[in-house]
Formats: sequence, structure tokens, C-alpha cells
Amino acid sequence: MAIVEVTIIPIGTGSTALSSYVARCIGALREEGIKYEIHPMGTIIEGDLDRILSVVRKMHEVPFKEGASRVITTIEIDDRRDKEATAKGKVESVLSKL
Amino acid sequence: MAIVEVTIIPIGTGSTALSSYVARCIGALREEGIKYEIHPMGTIIEGDLDRILSVVRKMHEVPFKEGASRVITTIEIDDRRDKEATAKGKVESVLSKL
Amino acid sequence: MAIVEVTIIPIGTGSTALSSYVARCIGALREEGIKYEIHPMGTIIEGDLDRILSVVRKMHEVPFKEGASRVITTIEIDDRRDKEATAKGKVESVLSKL
Amino acid sequence: MAIVEVTIIPIGTGSTALSSYVARCIGALREEGIKYEIHPMGTIIEGDLDRILSVVRKMHEVPFKEGASRVITTIEIDDRRDKEATAKGKVESVLSKL
Repeated sequence: MAIVEVTIIPIGTGSTALSSYVARCIGALREEGIKYEIHPMGTIIEGDLDRILSVVRKMHEVPFKEGASRVITTIEIDDRRDKEATAKGKVESVLSKL
Repeated sequence: MAIVEVTIIPIGTGSTALSSYVARCIGALREEGIKYEIHPMGTIIEGDLDRILSVVRKMHEVPFKEGASRVITTIEIDDRRDKEATAKGKVESVLSKL
Repeated sequence: MAIVEVTIIPIGTGSTALSSYVARCIGALREEGIKYEIHPMGTIIEGDLDRILSVVRKMHEVPFKEGASRVITTIEIDDRRDKEATAKGKVESVLSKL
Repeated sequence: MAIVEVTIIPIGTGSTALSSYVARCIGALREEGIKYEIHPMGTIIEGDLDRILSVVRKMHEVPFKEGASRVITTIEIDDRRDKEATAKGKVESVLSKL
């Protein structure tokens, strides 16, 4: 189980507004039935790493289908194997120590 | 007004658990009275860019004070000046288009 | 053809020195016969995106084999489809405009 | 002494080509007389952390002066205090272990 953050930025679209592209990427993610949450700077996906990377690969194609010619996608993988880590658990662990 | 994501990782601490370091960094952030939210892969801070960078600079020192000798800090700035963007507004804009 | 930057950080290894882990990751990359270059903050890989992601997936496993229990891997994909972009060409394009 | 990687991306410029913006940012960096190197996915700056952050802050303003209305800037700080680390030394350390 890994926790992954993904940010997808289409370049040269002529508008500073990117939310319609992001929404389409999230739409592709939703179809996958995988656990995710949206935050203001990216999307967190949780599950089997290979499964997540396959989903992110599909998301990366979405802006091209919407007309973009250049896409910068950032993927940050947090892969912990000494215990079962969850996205929710990570936040709760920090909050409990505040 | 900018939206900034910060992730602070102490290196070589001998433990895979980082939440106590993260909690101390958030503690330093809380004292600043600036708007923020925690997510599983980082912290979002919202406000005047110079103010945020000054706060992040303080957060970056926290793991050193806790004994770490190497810290990798990632700061992502989203700075939009054609309209007033907020962290909440960014997420709502995506959700409304889903 | 995409240009990808990858950074692999083992967590909780007890040492601030990471170069032996990085060298092992680069070793796995070298076996693949794909174009790459090392810089002080990561590794640039150039080629077919699916091929690169498959290589990066293997690199991400290396620190676990070396004893790490948690690995944070960051992948940044720059995928431009309106012209053939190369790592070398990107740098030359900037230098020519200085 | 810290090693910092910075990537500056103007959004909504209407062109997939970003090198003229990057060159202007590097131009602002060159005036500072600080050690740096360009690679295909960003710029590495080396020196006192506060000095670097002040320089990066100026670089972040450059695309706005060139007409951009939204800029996404990523800053990765590698700050090691148990020994004097240099950008060149980091790469050499990896190469020596290959």
C-alpha cells in the first residue's frame, strides 16, 4: 500500500484557469474505483503502487485529449513497508501529537 | 495572495516515523496565526507570499532543533494575480466541474 | 518522447548520507540502456514515457532491497507533443536566450 | 550552506515554449553572483540558504514582469549540517560508488 500525490499541469493553454483540466483528470480517476482525496495543490491516491501508477498514467493523458500539447505531471510516492500506512492515519498521527 | 504547499523531511533520523517532526513543524506554523490545512503529503498555507516564505523558513529549522542533521524541504508556490485565488476556492472550482 | 526527473529518498536509514542508495538506483538505471544524466538533486531520464516509468518503478524498489523500509520517490514528467523536445535541447534553448 | 533546486513555470501564457521565461529568470539569478547550474528540469543554486531564498524570490517575480498572470514555482531545499555538502560533491559521491 502506497500513498501518492499527483499534480497535473497543462502548459500553453492560454488561460490561467486550470480547474476544468483538473476536473477531467479527476473524472478519469473516479472511474477507477480507487481511494482518493482532492486538496488545493494536488490529489492524493491510496492503494497498491502499481495500480496507482497505472491510474496516474491515464490521468496524465487527459489534458492531451482536451487539447493541451504539453503537460507537466508530478508524482510523489510515499511507500512505507514496515507498517500499514494510510492517508487518514498519517494526518491523524500528526494531529494527535500537536 | 499565494497558495503554498510545504513538505519537510528529516533525513537520517533512524526511524521511518516522521509524524513527531511534522507535528513540531505544524506547531511552529500554528503560532504564526496564518491560514493552513494539513493533508497526508504536506501542508497548505495561504496568504501573502513573503509572509508564507518567512513562516516556511522557520518551519524548516524545526527538525534541526529536534536533532536532525539533514532536512529536505519542498515548497510549491501557486501565485495567481489575475484573480483572488483561495485554497478552498480552488477545490470548489474543481468539484463544481466534476 | 518525455523528459523525466526522478529523486529517490530512503527514510529512517539512520545516516544522513544517501549516496550509496542513489548509486544503487543509478546502477539499476544503467542496466536499462536508457538515456540519463545525474545532477545534484536528482536524475534526468529521457525517452518513451512508458519505458521511463517502468525503469523508475524498478529504481524505486532498490532502496528496499538495500534494507530501507520507507522510500519517498518524486517523479516529474515533462511531456511535450507539439515538437520533439530533448533534455539537451531544453538547456541549449535557455542558454541561447541568455 | 544549502543546495536548492528551483523550477519556475508560468501558466496560461498561450505557448508551450517556456525557455524565454526561464532565460529571464536565469538572467536575474546571474546578476546575483551566486553559484548555480542549469539542468533540463530546473536550476541548482548553492550557498547560504537565506541568500538563496532571497534570490529565488526575485526569480519568481520575473515571469510576472514578462506578462504572466500565474506562476507555479517549486523550491527543493537540501540542507545538510553535519558536513559541508556541495552540489559538485554530491554528484561525485554518487559517481564514485557506481
